[in-house]
Amino acid sequence: MDRVVIVGGGFAGLAAARRLADAPVEVEVVDQHNFHTFQPLLYEVATAGLDPADVAYPIRTVLRRTPNAHFVHGRVSGFDLATRSIRLEDGRTLSYDRLIVASGAAAAVFGVPGVVDHALFLYTLDDARWVRNQVLAALERSDASADDTLAPVIVVVGGGPTGVETAGAMAELIDIAIRHDRLRLDPQRTRIVLLDAKTRLLPGFPPGASAYAERTLRARGVEVRLGLGVDAVSPAGVTLAGGELLPATLVIWAAGVAVDGTVAADLPGRRGPGGRVMVQPDLSLPDHPEVFIVGDAAAVPDPGLATPGEGHLEADHTERFLPQLAQVAIQSGDHAARQVLSLLEGRPTAPFAYHDKGVMATIGRRSAVAQLANGVIVRGSLGWLAWLVLHLVYLIGFRNRVVVLVNWAWRYFRWPSGPRLIIGDVPAGPPTVSRHGQIDCPECGA
Amino acid sequence: MDRVVIVGGGFAGLAAARRLADAPVEVEVVDQHNFHTFQPLLYEVATAGLDPADVAYPIRTVLRRTPNAHFVHGRVSGFDLATRSIRLEDGRTLSYDRLIVASGAAAAVFGVPGVVDHALFLYTLDDARWVRNQVLAALERSDASADDTLAPVIVVVGGGPTGVETAGAMAELIDIAIRHDRLRLDPQRTRIVLLDAKTRLLPGFPPGASAYAERTLRARGVEVRLGLGVDAVSPAGVTLAGGELLPATLVIWAAGVAVDGTVAADLPGRRGPGGRVMVQPDLSLPDHPEVFIVGDAAAVPDPGLATPGEGHLEADHTERFLPQLAQVAIQSGDHAARQVLSLLEGRPTAPFAYHDKGVMATIGRRSAVAQLANGVIVRGSLGWLAWLVLHLVYLIGFRNRVVVLVNWAWRYFRWPSGPRLIIGDVPAGPPTVSRHGQIDCPECGA
Repeated sequence: MDRVVIVGGGFAGLAAARRLADAPVEVEVVDQHNFHTFQPLLYEVATAGLDPADVAYPIRTVLRRTPNAHFVHGRVSGFDLATRSIRLEDGRTLSYDRLIVASGAAAAVFGVPGVVDHALFLYTLDDARWVRNQVLAALERSDASADDTLAPVIVVVGGGPTGVETAGAMAELIDIAIRHDRLRLDPQRTRIVLLDAKTRLLPGFPPGASAYAERTLRARGVEVRLGLGVDAVSPAGVTLAGGELLPATLVIWAAGVAVDGTVAADLPGRRGPGGRVMVQPDLSLPDHPEVFIVGDAAAVPDPGLATPGEGHLEADHTERFLPQLAQVAIQSGDHAARQVLSLLEGRPTAPFAYHDKGVMATIGRRSAVAQLANGVIVRGSLGWLAWLVLHLVYLIGFRNRVVVLVNWAWRYFRWPSGPRLIIGDVPAGPPTVSRHGQIDCPECGA
Repeated sequence: MDRVVIVGGGFAGLAAARRLADAPVEVEVVDQHNFHTFQPLLYEVATAGLDPADVAYPIRTVLRRTPNAHFVHGRVSGFDLATRSIRLEDGRTLSYDRLIVASGAAAAVFGVPGVVDHALFLYTLDDARWVRNQVLAALERSDASADDTLAPVIVVVGGGPTGVETAGAMAELIDIAIRHDRLRLDPQRTRIVLLDAKTRLLPGFPPGASAYAERTLRARGVEVRLGLGVDAVSPAGVTLAGGELLPATLVIWAAGVAVDGTVAADLPGRRGPGGRVMVQPDLSLPDHPEVFIVGDAAAVPDPGLATPGEGHLEADHTERFLPQLAQVAIQSGDHAARQVLSLLEGRPTAPFAYHDKGVMATIGRRSAVAQLANGVIVRGSLGWLAWLVLHLVYLIGFRNRVVVLVNWAWRYFRWPSGPRLIIGDVPAGPPTVSRHGQIDCPECGA
């Protein structure tokens, strides 16, 4: 029986596995984590609205519905396309007849000095947990200090959905910390600054939605500063283009994503923006019809006319490729699996066509903007409700849906609960720095 | 206004803070963690039945009901009784008029070589998360290997409630891993061994309950080996008294607790078993009527006749002191706070009298033994139900109760859900060892 190896248990990889559930193939899903991460909600983990377990789901549980699929826990170290096998870091090799690479992306730093060492990211669950611990520990340090000049300043770089959602939820977190948790912070000195080099927020949305997002964030106390590039990040803060130093307690870098280079570096062929692997219209790797690249790892040409979503492209993606969104990942993973089945049956492959279902972003509690596929804009409470329903529908696994719903119900009714827990990323003992070398945290979880 | 400092946000510390809620005093609760840990359920976290957030609750949220209490996030480094102040590791000092020390305990290793370096513990939330990650990663490693001799062997040392509950829940976890998560483990070779130097399990319970626990565990596949001391723990496994080497993938040390020495070392006066601080009958420190020691940190003389619970004492506590149980912690914390109020009003202090409410232990799903205060033994499903209700009642905070109840309902109806997530204790990158220097874990969370 043909063996299909899927690298990555994200949206794209699991969509591919599910499509192959009833097919006469043996499927192996490889991931370095034993869980799927619901990335669109990582900002909620980072701002202590949801717990890490609310947005993570064991891949083995997901695969119960696909009895021909098996999970392999390991980190891919390279591809050997000639022998049709992949290597894992622990020395194992997995051979395949068909390969679907859904290895995802990582934060893009665009070569800005200091970002890797001094900023926090929001791309993995560990990133989000680390941001949560750092933010809560910074609030506790300010509470402990009688010096108001130590009030936390949180700078979010990036005005796309992730930056907007993070800034909005962070404003709520600080509001709860002051009003309900009685942290001794001066609301006038506790600042959240949202920066972007572009001149409007949510560049993938229509201008009216951008203006609404900006207005709503300002009303919640977020300072929105647009048209300002970042020259460097240091322990002192952010150096803006032009030389101004914006002092910052924490810098959250949400300026864009690039391909996860460690996995994709081995693959032949041209690269698109952010190092993404250029694929054929059917999503296969040039000269390797048995290999498909899907999700954030792929640079998928956007035919433009076929999709009403061209206007939604985030500005850090060029106009010519599909954006790195969950919907693109799900649909491309599913498409690749369908092509595997076509090849198995001796049929030709078909080009991938993306069906835009719209884009949306929350701006804190009870506010969101959504552009539906038909171009209609929904905003305010109705937009938030649309966002909630859509995310619940896509949350994998019933148990998670219940827990997430309970949390959200709480938030909606302004019962300021939530897991504001500093559960140590770092083993107790002397403070350490994370893999990104972020500011260390003498009090968090030690 | 008098200032009362409470060291520790566990059962004892929070019981004290709550008692002082309406009193004309200013209260400060100091803890190195910003959350309370529901320790009786840590074994559920370790066996992936509950998520860490299910058994942790932010102390600031708990203190909303005590408006005169403030939380201080920090680790105590010492006491200066002469100037009535405590020192924190970050250099701060807190002065007090009355001090309540509820600093808890830590795992006791009884000088057995290799335990600190090679065993896992179950005393803090980080311990429990670490055990969970190690166990799940060990199962994944066995799945990855074609060599059945690498099947995991999990040795639990300690036949008290923690050891019995952990071994029972671990048997369920492995059952779920094989039957539902389709891990390729050989059930015949996957072993759970429960060891104790004593000749029966649950020495604090009547012999009938011990026999029931042993029978139930054996029926679930746990190997119970009694009357066997441990001479050493090494990466290879456990060396038993007599020289036999019991090979082990993981060793979980649940053999007892001692005082947390880092906090209590500074206090004057005699020490009881496990280094606990000997207190006066009113729980005050000898010669320091303004200082009270409560909970696991205190060696409280047991008048014996007054409590029907003498038979419940775990064997690693001497007969003359109250056991280190949540009920003793809660009642002693409350008592100390009452004495603070008495002193404030110029009244004399009263001796502490412990009211035994019984003891209980689960033995996996739908089984438990409980000895009620009136001596009645409840076991089986009814015991489990009693255990569940009691623990839910004591779980702090409504939100946690709902989530925990959902999880338990799942388990009861044999829907094998649960957060079997290897969420990295260790930052991604090269494998590291924990503060206990446990076996490293190349695949967990990296």
